[in-house]
Amino acid sequence: MFNFEFYNPTKIVFGRDTVTRLSTLVPTNARVLILFGGASAQKNGTLDEVKAALGTREVHEFSGIEPNPSYETLMRAVEHVRREKIDFLLAVGGGSVIDGTKFIAAAANFDGEPWDIAVKGGANITSALPFGAVLTLPATGSEMNNGGVVTRKSIQAKLAFHSPLVYPQFSILDPSKTFTLPPRQIANGVVDAFVHTMEQYLTYPVNGQVQDRFAEGLLLSLIETGPLVLAETNDYDARANLMWVATLALNGLIGAGVPQDWATHMIGHELTAQYDIDHARTLAIVLPSLLNVQRGNKHAKLLQYAARVWNITEGSEEARIDQAIQNTRDFFESMGIKTRLGDYELGQAAIDIVVTQLSAHGMTKLGEHKDITLEVSRKILEGAL
Amino acid sequence: MFNFEFYNPTKIVFGRDTVTRLSTLVPTNARVLILFGGASAQKNGTLDEVKAALGTREVHEFSGIEPNPSYETLMRAVEHVRREKIDFLLAVGGGSVIDGTKFIAAAANFDGEPWDIAVKGGANITSALPFGAVLTLPATGSEMNNGGVVTRKSIQAKLAFHSPLVYPQFSILDPSKTFTLPPRQIANGVVDAFVHTMEQYLTYPVNGQVQDRFAEGLLLSLIETGPLVLAETNDYDARANLMWVATLALNGLIGAGVPQDWATHMIGHELTAQYDIDHARTLAIVLPSLLNVQRGNKHAKLLQYAARVWNITEGSEEARIDQAIQNTRDFFESMGIKTRLGDYELGQAAIDIVVTQLSAHGMTKLGEHKDITLEVSRKILEGAL
Repeated sequence: MFNFEFYNPTKIVFGRDTVTRLSTLVPTNARVLILFGGASAQKNGTLDEVKAALGTREVHEFSGIEPNPSYETLMRAVEHVRREKIDFLLAVGGGSVIDGTKFIAAAANFDGEPWDIAVKGGANITSALPFGAVLTLPATGSEMNNGGVVTRKSIQAKLAFHSPLVYPQFSILDPSKTFTLPPRQIANGVVDAFVHTMEQYLTYPVNGQVQDRFAEGLLLSLIETGPLVLAETNDYDARANLMWVATLALNGLIGAGVPQDWATHMIGHELTAQYDIDHARTLAIVLPSLLNVQRGNKHAKLLQYAARVWNITEGSEEARIDQAIQNTRDFFESMGIKTRLGDYELGQAAIDIVVTQLSAHGMTKLGEHKDITLEVSRKILEGAL
Repeated sequence: MFNFEFYNPTKIVFGRDTVTRLSTLVPTNARVLILFGGASAQKNGTLDEVKAALGTREVHEFSGIEPNPSYETLMRAVEHVRREKIDFLLAVGGGSVIDGTKFIAAAANFDGEPWDIAVKGGANITSALPFGAVLTLPATGSEMNNGGVVTRKSIQAKLAFHSPLVYPQFSILDPSKTFTLPPRQIANGVVDAFVHTMEQYLTYPVNGQVQDRFAEGLLLSLIETGPLVLAETNDYDARANLMWVATLALNGLIGAGVPQDWATHMIGHELTAQYDIDHARTLAIVLPSLLNVQRGNKHAKLLQYAARVWNITEGSEEARIDQAIQNTRDFFESMGIKTRLGDYELGQAAIDIVVTQLSAHGMTKLGEHKDITLEVSRKILEGAL
């Protein structure tokens, strides 16, 4: 096991009818800015619930934080924060709204051009406004971690940042808030959480027993819960399991002390940037092919994954690995998520463009061994045709 | 799944050669009191390492915190804190030293008679000194939770307290610090972590998929690691796995959102109080018999435990449950820990005394269904003869 640090001070308030807890979680004298995406928070009543729970506090609203939140939009929120002397932010939404709120929290207190926060990956954050979240879409884990991604449209850049100063103070997770989500977003959430787990698990063994068992536990839960959340919109327990799995898949716990990959995400980001394919769908395209191309490096862990997650213990080692990769692909497809570039009407030309973009962004040594060169990325994409 | 809150702000610094990190974790201008047990911290060099890492800070020492730390001892430390205007505590040891440090941290700031903290279970704590820990004995999980147990010898009382104000700010977990532990303490640690997990897992199903999978992961890791830590004193990875498992077994995560039992602990505490049997050994005596007596209530979870932890899937349901309980007992015995009252030269007379003590302490409705009456406790103890 590698040496590691684990620190996560976000308070999770989980369950039915927990939005009312805002009345005690937010300071009583706070000047609050509620941040959200589009009309859904209004339509499904969550926004009204949030405002009711905030009572007599001074409450402002900022809507329009888009998927893959843009610097341009977020800076308008920063102006609002500064102008109105806001001192507490409240994100109501999914990963994009929470990521955006983290950036706003840091940018509002930043001395200089806030885009530098993204350029430096958050290392230059020295203070941030306090904030909380009401999660409505289980997927990214942003509700219990200290990272975010921000996109600057004008220069086509999408950058990640991290800082111990941008953990949410609290996150409210009410699974019944997901009942109104479209199936496409639920399916994306399942695949996103699955691949987050795989990026921290499917590398090489370092005898991190708990990390392996916990990662396998998340994968097994997703395999069990995935069909249930798609089949029935009002199955509270299934939604609760998905929500808690997605949070734990990226809160730092399963990745502590073990190697991590993240090449699937880096290649997937380029597909989203170029072709506007949903983040989770790009992961479903890349991962099965990446596991196949990297099967040498990942041999031992692939066999462990086959046995413990898919109960595949018969046949030659290579046959077991083939079957485990096939099962992974089949699981994504069973969620209604296509796993081939061709399904998105992309072919060899797209691969050339994506590899060029990877090169332009310095993504030339990816993976847990830094051995996924541009040539290997090309092979992975060709395997996904 | 039940509604729950999860909050745990302790920073874990895990790995080899991490004691040096004290130089940045403790405020540079702190007046530090190091608290420890007996001579072992001095003999094995840990104390010297700690003092070296603390550099030029003003450092005081307080030794002699005993297993099951006593109010009388802890109050002497409180006097030292007040007299010397100590503003940071540093526990160096196992669960008893860390529990004691939590009490001292709260008592030093307490207005009134500090024993009231124990009497009120910590609900009256309104402030506490900041403190950290250097863990040398994996077992109790105190290094990453907000609870402690304190004993007042003069009135033969042993009381637990909890407060969000007594989380350690940080805990340093260096597995190589356990190389010098006697096998008896290592075996106790394995059993203690195992039973902590079982108290939060082996109840009744509420469809908490992740909680179940994580608990099973901890149990599987202990079953795998137990023999290794006993066989070889210097197996770093085995010690690392035990240390991380023991922390995660009682940091609030696996118990969030699911029912909990804790009757084994309550009955075990009386055995320790009366007959001075190691805490973990009392748990090993009580648990197998409790599982057998409560097999009706725990039927579904016992079958799940049999299948997922022990891979027992053949035979009648009752036979599978019998086998799972037998395997549990055999595992404890394989750690060198005896599981029968008779092994400790206790018989029917001891059972009468323990049941009387349970009654005196109000322990008349234990377990996840509050159905472990004094009569049921008697049956459990008789099953352990």
